[in-house]
Amino acid sequence: MRLYTYWRSSAAQRVRIALHLKGVAYDPVPVHLRRGEQRGAAHAARNPQRLVPALELDDGTVLTQSLAIIEYLEETHPAPPLLPADARGRARVRALAQAVACDIHPVQNLRVLSHLTGACGLDEDTKTAWARHWIETGLAAVERLLADSAETGRFCHGDTPTLADCCLIPQLFNARRFGCDLSALETVGRIDSACAALPAFRRAAPDAQPDAE
Amino acid sequence: MRLYTYWRSSAAQRVRIALHLKGVAYDPVPVHLRRGEQRGAAHAARNPQRLVPALELDDGTVLTQSLAIIEYLEETHPAPPLLPADARGRARVRALAQAVACDIHPVQNLRVLSHLTGACGLDEDTKTAWARHWIETGLAAVERLLADSAETGRFCHGDTPTLADCCLIPQLFNARRFGCDLSALETVGRIDSACAALPAFRRAAPDAQPDAE
Repeated sequence: MRLYTYWRSSAAQRVRIALHLKGVAYDPVPVHLRRGEQRGAAHAARNPQRLVPALELDDGTVLTQSLAIIEYLEETHPAPPLLPADARGRARVRALAQAVACDIHPVQNLRVLSHLTGACGLDEDTKTAWARHWIETGLAAVERLLADSAETGRFCHGDTPTLADCCLIPQLFNARRFGCDLSALETVGRIDSACAALPAFRRAAPDAQPDAE
Repeated sequence: MRLYTYWRSSAAQRVRIALHLKGVAYDPVPVHLRRGEQRGAAHAARNPQRLVPALELDDGTVLTQSLAIIEYLEETHPAPPLLPADARGRARVRALAQAVACDIHPVQNLRVLSHLTGACGLDEDTKTAWARHWIETGLAAVERLLADSAETGRFCHGDTPTLADCCLIPQLFNARRFGCDLSALETVGRIDSACAALPAFRRAAPDAQPDAE
């Protein structure tokens, strides 16, 4: 299978982590977001949303949306599992993943920030303050969700990585890019270190990608 | 079970639709977002993200995040199903749902719009243009995903409502609130009419809620 990806895309990084955790081989096909390749005819034909990631299966079927792709991988390549065995555990892991994927990342991604400085006419400092605000507020809530639960283990849920870790780690890369203060996030920081010790997370990291700049 | 909800919350509406489609009884507990009740101690203790919806189970466990809640309902109350039986179908339905829940709604929800006019100092017209831009761009992509697929039926996927319809319909309420031009969205419009004919969608609509103003 082929993964249409961009080294610094947080959503693409989530899928790369899942693929590496599951040991699923894939061919990365870079789509250069800063140069606008996602808006070209070739990529728009693959994904009318003009976003990455998109996963092309061997028969040409294209799957979009990072969380939908990871759920598909979970169903078709169940080992090792990225969701817990119980319904409540799955609900918790999905909620943690969505706390990042629905409430933090969409508000600070490239196209939104470009619109703030473009159409809205805001300056670079206001744009950076915007990104920091949403990331810091969002991660503070994630810290509480993690620190207050007995189900948090070495990773976000128990002692093996899940969909929640696949989402949290890329968001921390973004947080550092924007100079966010992460010092109060003790549980998040501990989980970040646990993930960094795993080859799957290292191989999926932005700087390890063939299109890294 | 208790659903912490707000009549005009798009995310809460998704869960209300799913509960009604599945015939699951629940007690609605309004959290008044415009008055800031979600930021009070009572709600923050329930959900550190200070958002609705939150679903409190009979033993006091609180589930958060609309899509995670609906997946939980799907697993615990499987009939009628809101996800297709095949993995690719499920990936498509989840991707359609996330095209709304990750790429449209988060960028135009109440807290983001309030931040644009508050901290960023933009005027009301710029705020409205912002909301329209993301809704119209996002729904145009959803229209393509729907119109170009043989799997689209009377509803977003086949001839029964799914998680995708649970997300699309509340987004259309928002689109109308902001005066978006929906005239080119033929498939979306047709599905909107099909949903409007179902009691579950009508009962979950903003104006049908006990806290509607």
